[in-house]
Formats: sequence, structure tokens, C-alpha cells
Amino acid sequence: MAGSSFGTIFKITTWGESHGKGVGVVIDGCPAGLSLCEADIQKFLDRRRPGQSRFTTPRKESDAVEILSGVFEGQTAGTPVSLLVRNENQRSKDYSEIASYYRPGHADYTFDAKYGFRDYRGGGRSSGRETIGRVAAGAVASKILAETGVSIRTYTRSIGPVAISPDRFDPDEICANALFMPDAAAAVEAQAYLERCMQEQDSSGGTIECVITGMPAGVGETVFEKLDANLAKAMFSIGAVKGFEIGSGFGAAAKKGSENNDAFLTAPSGKITKKTNNAGGILGGMSDGDPIVFRVAVKPTPSIARAQQTVKKDGTPIDIRIAGRHDPVVVPRAVVVVESMAALVLTDLLLLNLSARMEYLKKIYTD
Amino acid sequence: MAGSSFGTIFKITTWGESHGKGVGVVIDGCPAGLSLCEADIQKFLDRRRPGQSRFTTPRKESDAVEILSGVFEGQTAGTPVSLLVRNENQRSKDYSEIASYYRPGHADYTFDAKYGFRDYRGGGRSSGRETIGRVAAGAVASKILAETGVSIRTYTRSIGPVAISPDRFDPDEICANALFMPDAAAAVEAQAYLERCMQEQDSSGGTIECVITGMPAGVGETVFEKLDANLAKAMFSIGAVKGFEIGSGFGAAAKKGSENNDAFLTAPSGKITKKTNNAGGILGGMSDGDPIVFRVAVKPTPSIARAQQTVKKDGTPIDIRIAGRHDPVVVPRAVVVVESMAALVLTDLLLLNLSARMEYLKKIYTD
Amino acid sequence: MAGSSFGTIFKITTWGESHGKGVGVVIDGCPAGLSLCEADIQKFLDRRRPGQSRFTTPRKESDAVEILSGVFEGQTAGTPVSLLVRNENQRSKDYSEIASYYRPGHADYTFDAKYGFRDYRGGGRSSGRETIGRVAAGAVASKILAETGVSIRTYTRSIGPVAISPDRFDPDEICANALFMPDAAAAVEAQAYLERCMQEQDSSGGTIECVITGMPAGVGETVFEKLDANLAKAMFSIGAVKGFEIGSGFGAAAKKGSENNDAFLTAPSGKITKKTNNAGGILGGMSDGDPIVFRVAVKPTPSIARAQQTVKKDGTPIDIRIAGRHDPVVVPRAVVVVESMAALVLTDLLLLNLSARMEYLKKIYTD
Amino acid sequence: MAGSSFGTIFKITTWGESHGKGVGVVIDGCPAGLSLCEADIQKFLDRRRPGQSRFTTPRKESDAVEILSGVFEGQTAGTPVSLLVRNENQRSKDYSEIASYYRPGHADYTFDAKYGFRDYRGGGRSSGRETIGRVAAGAVASKILAETGVSIRTYTRSIGPVAISPDRFDPDEICANALFMPDAAAAVEAQAYLERCMQEQDSSGGTIECVITGMPAGVGETVFEKLDANLAKAMFSIGAVKGFEIGSGFGAAAKKGSENNDAFLTAPSGKITKKTNNAGGILGGMSDGDPIVFRVAVKPTPSIARAQQTVKKDGTPIDIRIAGRHDPVVVPRAVVVVESMAALVLTDLLLLNLSARMEYLKKIYTD
Repeated sequence: MAGSSFGTIFKITTWGESHGKGVGVVIDGCPAGLSLCEADIQKFLDRRRPGQSRFTTPRKESDAVEILSGVFEGQTAGTPVSLLVRNENQRSKDYSEIASYYRPGHADYTFDAKYGFRDYRGGGRSSGRETIGRVAAGAVASKILAETGVSIRTYTRSIGPVAISPDRFDPDEICANALFMPDAAAAVEAQAYLERCMQEQDSSGGTIECVITGMPAGVGETVFEKLDANLAKAMFSIGAVKGFEIGSGFGAAAKKGSENNDAFLTAPSGKITKKTNNAGGILGGMSDGDPIVFRVAVKPTPSIARAQQTVKKDGTPIDIRIAGRHDPVVVPRAVVVVESMAALVLTDLLLLNLSARMEYLKKIYTD
Repeated sequence: MAGSSFGTIFKITTWGESHGKGVGVVIDGCPAGLSLCEADIQKFLDRRRPGQSRFTTPRKESDAVEILSGVFEGQTAGTPVSLLVRNENQRSKDYSEIASYYRPGHADYTFDAKYGFRDYRGGGRSSGRETIGRVAAGAVASKILAETGVSIRTYTRSIGPVAISPDRFDPDEICANALFMPDAAAAVEAQAYLERCMQEQDSSGGTIECVITGMPAGVGETVFEKLDANLAKAMFSIGAVKGFEIGSGFGAAAKKGSENNDAFLTAPSGKITKKTNNAGGILGGMSDGDPIVFRVAVKPTPSIARAQQTVKKDGTPIDIRIAGRHDPVVVPRAVVVVESMAALVLTDLLLLNLSARMEYLKKIYTD
Repeated sequence: MAGSSFGTIFKITTWGESHGKGVGVVIDGCPAGLSLCEADIQKFLDRRRPGQSRFTTPRKESDAVEILSGVFEGQTAGTPVSLLVRNENQRSKDYSEIASYYRPGHADYTFDAKYGFRDYRGGGRSSGRETIGRVAAGAVASKILAETGVSIRTYTRSIGPVAISPDRFDPDEICANALFMPDAAAAVEAQAYLERCMQEQDSSGGTIECVITGMPAGVGETVFEKLDANLAKAMFSIGAVKGFEIGSGFGAAAKKGSENNDAFLTAPSGKITKKTNNAGGILGGMSDGDPIVFRVAVKPTPSIARAQQTVKKDGTPIDIRIAGRHDPVVVPRAVVVVESMAALVLTDLLLLNLSARMEYLKKIYTD
Repeated sequence: MAGSSFGTIFKITTWGESHGKGVGVVIDGCPAGLSLCEADIQKFLDRRRPGQSRFTTPRKESDAVEILSGVFEGQTAGTPVSLLVRNENQRSKDYSEIASYYRPGHADYTFDAKYGFRDYRGGGRSSGRETIGRVAAGAVASKILAETGVSIRTYTRSIGPVAISPDRFDPDEICANALFMPDAAAAVEAQAYLERCMQEQDSSGGTIECVITGMPAGVGETVFEKLDANLAKAMFSIGAVKGFEIGSGFGAAAKKGSENNDAFLTAPSGKITKKTNNAGGILGGMSDGDPIVFRVAVKPTPSIARAQQTVKKDGTPIDIRIAGRHDPVVVPRAVVVVESMAALVLTDLLLLNLSARMEYLKKIYTD
């Protein structure tokens, strides 16, 4: 089935395997008249590029993006924007060993079960490299959002047991440390924790938080195409994600209505807002005008150097050690992936919302 | 936009407001040759019907379903199955008060923000009655799954602070108590907790767990149409859901790779399986043949009799008390909604997976 | 597969068989704020109702529509509009004979081939009654178009060998004769021709023409979602349609470029228009601001009383005569179906076009 | 909106402008296990390549295709197949003149009307080069069809007033002349006609016919996703198409039921077939097992060297002559485009039909 497309109006289709010729994305439905150049996209890709700190794989890939279509004289033309990143680091390595068994925590077994065989070189389509297409498209979506007054801030909330503290929250710190944590002290502690994981040939999980401001109220469709439902799908489409919550999230389950309800009030500006934000900025699947706040849980990198038990394709047990150097934690590099997927969802729903009222139709066609 | 449809092959479209003439669903893409009668569907609807215990609203609605099309001589005919439930309890009540302000925790404000006005009678389209269509369709999907060897068990995992204990887990207990908890002692405790909430004119949240067995391995599409991504969207499309996790879920974020990876092993039957199930039965977005396990967090019922602060449509502050008797907790009635949405996702992905291999195409057309 | 839905934003889903409990449609994605009542829809349904002249089947069905949802205080609420028409004329007739063989020109054989069996009562899902849902939805789309300044005129262009003459074209005549021909003399001739067909226990084909005025230029998507491509699909989704052409149509194939090209010119109003309209109002799949003109060819009613050869389900030859009185020509009743399908296409593409430019996005959200 | 995708299961997305960096297509949903190499695709692309005869533009482009993803060890892997053809012939020509006015018969004006501006270099997205992506994808679809026993034959039926004669029909002749006509005498006559058009600085239209054999009966969905409806849309998505008819087509409109109905009979093999094929192999939108036969009308090339009237962007009248050498007729190069679009429709509907029966589901999952 066609599972590589995302979105209804602003629709992206990603393609490419980790060890094929390249990876890319086609963005169909980008409105005409957005100024766009390769640097706009490269800026996003650089945030997920490997080799930026000792906590990411030291593989060197420049991941330089090429715009193949859809931009004319510096502006989107309304036609599909095709973006290409060539793979550089495809050494003619011997994959015969990895081809013979199923790595725990990876999609090796399920790919075989689905298709009868798999591209066993470096994860194939389930590799983290697939996210390059998402991030490149997310960069374009983010430009559209910026022009509509919407901004997104995404950061690492925890690494293993080390979480940021609300008291020390400092947005300027996010880009100041290798882990993208908005808390300098927590970042130091988390780095020490990761050092220990690496010494133990192990890896760590973590959580990412995303805060969206400036969304007009009423965006998101009722019933199945709710804003939160689409964010949940977007986040769970990212490889290592195991949990998603919005606003008070799992905490809401233990609360009482009187604690969880957010009282409406009128801001001095006259805007209707809420006293608290347990709703996380979404009511009935539509934005309520307050910040949209969500968190995702990311599992530890499954590729670890420690010995692990598994089976070969024929079912024979085997003890393996996964060679090569892998990210001890994927969270920092996943921050921009989370932000990109959020941008895609918001852009698509903003565009869909243009057909919500007869009034809008008249404003465009008959005014 | 068209937000009331769900699914690609097995596609449902729900319609109806709480105080309109009725609610219903059209199922398009149901395979021909499934035996189906109204009793098959009614059985599911009865699980969400109000008035079954003192913990659900005492409104009386029979919620009797009528099959309007798509079934011929007791079998689905391949054509759309249209299901209708007439609303019975639409008293010509005075809604002018509720129309004038925004209830905290409800979609009143966001509906107004989106469409410029709203059907203010009892929640309109964001009412829990909308789920009748989902449950009716879920009943049909569940019949298809049963014929394919897939079964689903869904139950209440916690009510407020009261959670079931793994030691006392008893599947036979699920239907034996009003809260659908598989733990008799926890059910007693949770009922006492709910009594206190009701005395305090307050409400409670909770969590629901779902376990799916018998799924063939390899179902779910890679990249955006992952099995877990579709389950996440399905669950977040349910009104009160604030969190979703699969397998080790948020717990995975604090774990190390060596703890979270599930070793593959070969069962005595020769089937490849896993030693543990932190993956929750899904790897790379595809079923791995082990049980699929997920949890959702449900917020407390926002309609409470206690005094609350809010604003009128024009922004003027107002203190309100929501009259009428509402469910003090929606979790027990949401259990079958969660199960139905899961059934819809699984059925659709099973059907989509039929096109995964050239081998299947040949098996159907040229054998 | 889900083949009963049409449209992307303004999406309809029809359901129902000719001899089931009823037929209907769910319209999802209708913008909020359109005034709508049952009479608006009934007016369209009455144009396709049987029993209006001696050239339509004398079956009596009132085809009264009921709005079940989506309209609040006389306006569409942004939620799905569910429309129901109960079947009245389902006599407990003996269909065992018709069940045993395949009627020429009907879908009996192909339904069996697809699903393994079929609802043999009166055509089931392939009955003309299925178009009730389309016409009901088309009535709603037409109201949206009217508010945007778009109007549609549809009429019978020919019945068998009798065609209207451009010299006698009179729009006021369309509703003045039973055949909906804009040419009184041709209508008289065509009626005489149909009388002869009926005496011979035979039936006739014909053509329908549709002219759309007031479409803003630039509507329709490039490449696959062209305006003409969507019209073509819409028309061929109607049971008896065998041909579709736009503008100069098949005539263009025999022409030279210098004859077929339409010179652009500037109207006194300053609007850019064309000297001729061989393009039929569409260039590159987008409306060019001139009238959109297309024609469809409708085959003769396959149900005729004359003796015909066919086979039984098991392949045995059999001579049959189809009993009952059928429309000797479906063209007049199909006129409103063609108009409705056109209205659905235009409305959907007008709504989709709202996301064509960054300028529109800013106009709605930031002005 | 996203108008560059086609298909539901076997879904393609094309991208690229005539004078950008290249053109391409992403095929998502191709079943795993199809043997595929670049030569399979190149063979199709060579059929539409310019410069093959004096009746096509003499531009030289090798149009060499590169498979960027989705094929592993010579077989499709179930993942997206990304195909790229770099543009070679993008001379830094001066397009300022063409940018200033609207060419008759082209999409210049409508592109401006839709997006506010356009890529004026050589037609941009509405250029014939866009069809490269379709043909590349059509080559893959055709391989799937071949393995399922379906074959397609497409040819030129007429050029201007010169049509093939049924008496002289010779399939071996199709590839033996530059016009792909299955009638040697007609080809000679048509070539003479084209020579005259070229001398007159004019161009010609024509018709293409397509015959599909080997389709199993019952493929195509009822109501909106009919096989003929999808073929009609596919054909009208091709730039110059102005008409489409199936089986007896427009001829059916003038016929009587007794003439147009096809009697069913049983072939000596026991297969149910039809005495005639006015239905064109489709009944009720589903294949009936007999050959599927359709025709498309193609308008004359709008780019002609003769003087033409038009207007500038500001509405000022201007007389133009379109420089450069253009195809005097697009029909021969469009033959493979028609065949490719047909292959895409058939493949998608074959895959969708796998979910038509419970029996198929059980055959794949429980046998």
C-alpha cells in the first residue's frame, strides 16, 4: 500500500533507503508564492546531521539538499517541490552477517514477514535516514507557518532518568548544548549519564517536548481528523517513538474534573484564553488559541555493542554483538524530526481550515 | 474538510449530533461474504449504552440499530453498509443558558472559533453519542477479525488513583463488574472512589488497556501508515483521550537499550517470537506476531456540578454550575469505543496488506 | 474497496440498493454557514423522480428527502449532512427468475464475478436509484455555487437520431417539455421517435449537454486533478454513460491547430477572454473564465421487452423478455444527475483552490 | 492542492518542469517481488522520446532513467520506487518574449490566473515532459499486469481526417511506421497529410485506440471508482485530450437498446462471454472478461508557426508567431502515454479488488 505519503493538501511523499542512491521527498500542494531556497532547508537538515557531538554517530555525511523542481525565481510555483539528498557513505561493506539474523528492537524480522525478504543494508527503509525527507519538508512547512504567525519550539525534556527542571527552563540554552536541553545543569548531568551508557556499551531513551504558539483558534477537524489525532499519528510514524501525550496527558487520568478543567477567562487584550492549560491548547480536536504542548517518549537506540540473544532467519538461536558506532541516544537528533512532523500537521490543517466557512469562500472569490 | 471518515479500504463515515434526528455510520469497503445481522452490532452498542450502572448517566436510550443497506440474505454484499440509530431523548429543553457561555473542558469555544457558531444542544457533534457510529462499525470489523483469527480484549486499567494489579488479573472479571476492570478488588476500591467523587460533585479520569492477539506478523505499512501510528490517531480521535503508549511506552524513555530490547527466540511450535514484549507487538510499524499491547489515558468528565469560572461568548466572566446528571467517569463506556477503533485500524491494515506481495496477486488471480 | 465516496474536501458517500430500506448520502466537508432546508434538496430530486411523463417508468415513488444531521437553525453547521430517502415501492415480488440469468447490458454478471453473488432485486446497487444520493448532494453543491456566482444549465442535446438545432436553441424551453430539450420542434420529433421505440418494445440512447458559467479562472488542479479529468470521471461514474467530450471534443481530432486554437482577446470590461471556445472553458486542466461546455453520450436503456438471448448463471443459453415497464430512454431523468455530478466537481475544486496561494492563507488568517 | 498523485494502492506522484533540473516520479505501493531494472523502464520512455521521426520535435534528449530507490537485488522491495530523468536541453534561452503574452491553446493564462505567476520556460509543469514520470511508472505497472496475464495494445486510430480501416488492421504494422498506425496504407496517407500541415505551418489532431485483453472479470469498483470512470479521468489528465469513449461510445447515443445490448453466451471453453462488445468490456463499471476497448480524441498541437492573435498579460492585443520546431501532431508520442495511464488504472484496481471478498482474505491469511 502507499504508506510513504503524509497530509491531505500539503502532502509529502518520502522515498529512499539508507544504502541506496539517496533519499528525498516530493512536496505536493505547497501554496504558490512562498520564498524558498536550498539554504532554508539545509538549516533544518543540519540539525539532524550526524557527527555533531560525541553523542551522535561519527559517520560523516554532508546531507546537502538539492531542489529539483517547484521553485521559480526564488518562489514556490504551486507545483511539486522535489528535494534530493544523495547518499555518500555507502561503503561496499559486507552485510552478509547482518543479513542472516534479526537484530532485537529493529524491523528486520517484520520486514521479512511482510515482504518475504528485505534490504538488509543498514536498516533499508526503516533507517533513520528516511527522516531526511520529513525534515526537508518540515523546513518548508515551517516557513509557511512563520508567515502565518505560528512558531514551534522543540527540545529534549529528559535523557534516561535525567529531566529538565521547570525552575531552570531557559530557551536560549536549547542550542547551546549538544543535547538540545533548555536547562544547562540537566544537560551536564545527562551528558555524564550518556558517558556511562557508552562505557557500558549500552544506550538510553528520553523524552522530547514541543510547544507551538500563535495558532489561530479553531484549526483541526472534528471527529477523525482532530489536531491532536494527527499529531499523535505524526509522532508515532517516527521510528523510535513509544508514547505521546498532550497537555496534562497521562497525568489527567489520575485527576479529578475540578483539577483538570481549565477555566476560560478574558485576557486584557480581549482575547479569550484559559487560566491553566491542561488541555495542551486543544479542545475537541481543535486549537483553542493557547500554546499547544505535547511530549513524546523515545525508546533507547536498539543497536548496542553488548552481547544480545536473537535468532537467524531459520530460527536458530545466535548470540550477536552489533558492530560499528551508533548513536547512544537518538533523542537530540530526533528533536528536529518531531518539530518537522508537527510543522507538517499544522500546515496541512491550516490549509484545510480554509474551507470551513462559506464566509472564507466568498472572501476569496467574490470580494 | 472531510474529517468524519476513517480508513482507506475499510472506510467508515460517521454522522449525527446528540440532539439531531439520529446518529449513524456508512461502512464502505466491507468485503462481501461476511455473515452479518443487527444483533451482531447491537451487542457492541449495548456495551456503551447509558444507564447500565450508577456510574453512567441515567438517560434512557435504547440505541437500537437498523441496517439500511449492504446486507443481502444475511451476508455483506460488497456494497456500503449504512447503519442508523435514531435519537430518542431529545427533549425540547431550554438550551439558551448553555448557548450563552463556554463550558470548561468542552469544545464549545473551539466550535465557535472554527465555524462562527455552533449547535449548542448537548455537545452537538462533539457529544459522546458520535461514538455510536464508531462502535457499530467496530462490531462489523470485529467480525472480520474473528474470521481471520484475531481477537481483542479491552478493559479498564485504572480509575483515578486506583489501578488493577497484575497479580490479580482475571479476564473473566472484566464483564462481572460495572467498571470493566479485570480485578475484582480494584473494582470495589474504584467504585468507592467514584462514590466520593460524586458526593463532591466531581468526576474522575482513568486509563484503558487493550491487548490484541492472533495478528499475523508483517501487518502495518512502513513510514507514515505504521500500525502504531494508525492506532495512535484512532485513539486520539476519541474525545477525552490525552495520552497513548505502546508496549513499554513512556517507561522506555527512562530505560537502557539492554533493558528495552526484546530478544528473539524460537517457540517450540517453530514460530519466531520474543522473550519479552517491550515493543508491544509492533516493530518498525508492523505487527511482529506477538500480542499488541497499548494504553490510553482518559481525562475526567468535564461536565461537573461544582461551580466553575468561565466566560460568555462576549468575554464577560460568569460562574456556572452544569446541571443534569453526567457520567462521573467516561472510562467504562469508552472501553468498547477503544476496542472498536482498534478493530477498525486492524481490519483496514489487514486488507491493505493484501497488496504487499506479487505472490498474493498471483495467488488470487492466476492460481 | 471504498468506491462509494466522491470528492476530497466536499466529499460525499452514497449508500443504498433499489430494493433495500432506502438510499442516501452523507456529505462531509460542507462549509458552515450555508442556508439549507429540505425543500432546496427536494427540488432537485423531483427532477429525477419517475412517473413524470409517459417516457419514464410509471413507478410511483415520492422520494421525499429527510435531513438527518448537519443543519442547525437553517444553516449548515460544518458537520456531516446526512440525507435519507426511504424506498417505498419494494413489493414482495418474485425475483427468482431474474436471479437465475444475466440481463444483457446490465451489471448482473459482473457483480457475480466480483463478489461471488449479488443482490438481484431490481439492480441492487447498480440501480438508477443510487443516483438519488448524488442528486441530493448535488443540490447542496449547487447552492454553494450559486453563492459564489456559478450557474449550471443542463439539457438533452439528442434522443436517438434527433438532435437540437443551434438556431432554435431556447433555454426557456428546457423545462417546458418532458424531454428537457431547449428546442420545441426537436422535442416534438424526439417524442414521436420514442413512441415508435416503445411500440417496438425497444429503447433509445441520447446525449446531454452542460454549460457552466461564472467560474473564476484558475480553478482545477494541474496534472492529475484537472477540472476536465474530474468531470470525465464524474460523468463516467453515471451508469449508462459511454462517452464524454469537452469543447470541440472528438471534433478536435480532425481539426488543424489554426482552426482549434482560441485567440485570446480583451473584453470591453477588461476581462481576458477568448474569441472562440473550442477549449470548452478549460486550458491545462484549469477553468479559463469562459463557459465550461461538455457533452455526454448515454446508451439506450438495456431493459427492453423484446426477446433477447443470454445465459443462466451456469452458462446455459436462455431466451428472455424483461417484464415490467422501464424508461424507454434514461436521458431526461439523467439530465439532473449530470448537473449534480458537475456541481460536486466544481464545488470541490473551488474549495481546494483556496490553498493555491500564500496570499489566500494570509488573507484569511492574518488580515 | 495535491494534484500530482494518481492511484490509491499503486500510487504515483510525478514532479518536474520542462526547464528545471529534471522530471521524475515516486511509485508508492508497488508490491514486493517484481523483478525490475532500468532497461524495463527505458524501453517505455524510448517510445515517447523526441527526435524519432520527422513528425516529432527534433530536440535531442536521451531521457535516461535512474532508479534511485525501492529495488534491491533486482526486485522491488515494497518500498517507494523513485525514478529520475535529468533534463539536458535547458539552454539559457531568452524566454522574456514568451513570458509577456498568453499562447493560444496553452495553459499560460490559466497558470497565471491560478497562482498569480508562472514558470514561463517551455510550458513549465504543463509541458509534455511531465508525462515522462507517467510513462516510467506505466512501465512498472505494465510488468505487474504482464505477470497477471493482462496485456495492452495501443495505437493511432486517426490523424486529422485519415483513419485506419478495420479491413486492413495489422498489429505487426504498429511499430513499423512512425505514426504507430496498425494500417500501412493509412500511415502513408497520414504522413502525406502531416507534410502538408507542416508546409502550412499548421498542426493536426487525431485519435488513439487502446485494447486491453486478459483482465479477469469483476475488476473495478461500483459507483464512483468504476473502471471506466477511472480510465476517463486518467485519459483526461493527459494534456491534449478532448474526448473519451468506451465500446460503442458516442455511437451508442443514436442506437436502440436492441442494437446496443450484447447478448451473453458461453464460449466452448465454458467461459461466459458476449456475442458483441458494444459495452467495451465494462458493465456496471467492472470488467466483464472481454477486451476493454476505448478511444481518446487528441487536439492539434497548439504551438504553430503561423501568425496568431492573442493578448499580453496586461490585456493589450498582440500578433505572435511561435518560434522553434514543435511536433506537428502529438498523437504518435501520446500513444505510450495513453497505454501507461491505462496500465496504472488497471494495476491499481486489480490490487484494490483483492479486498472484495472475505474468501480472498482467508486465502491469504488462514490457508
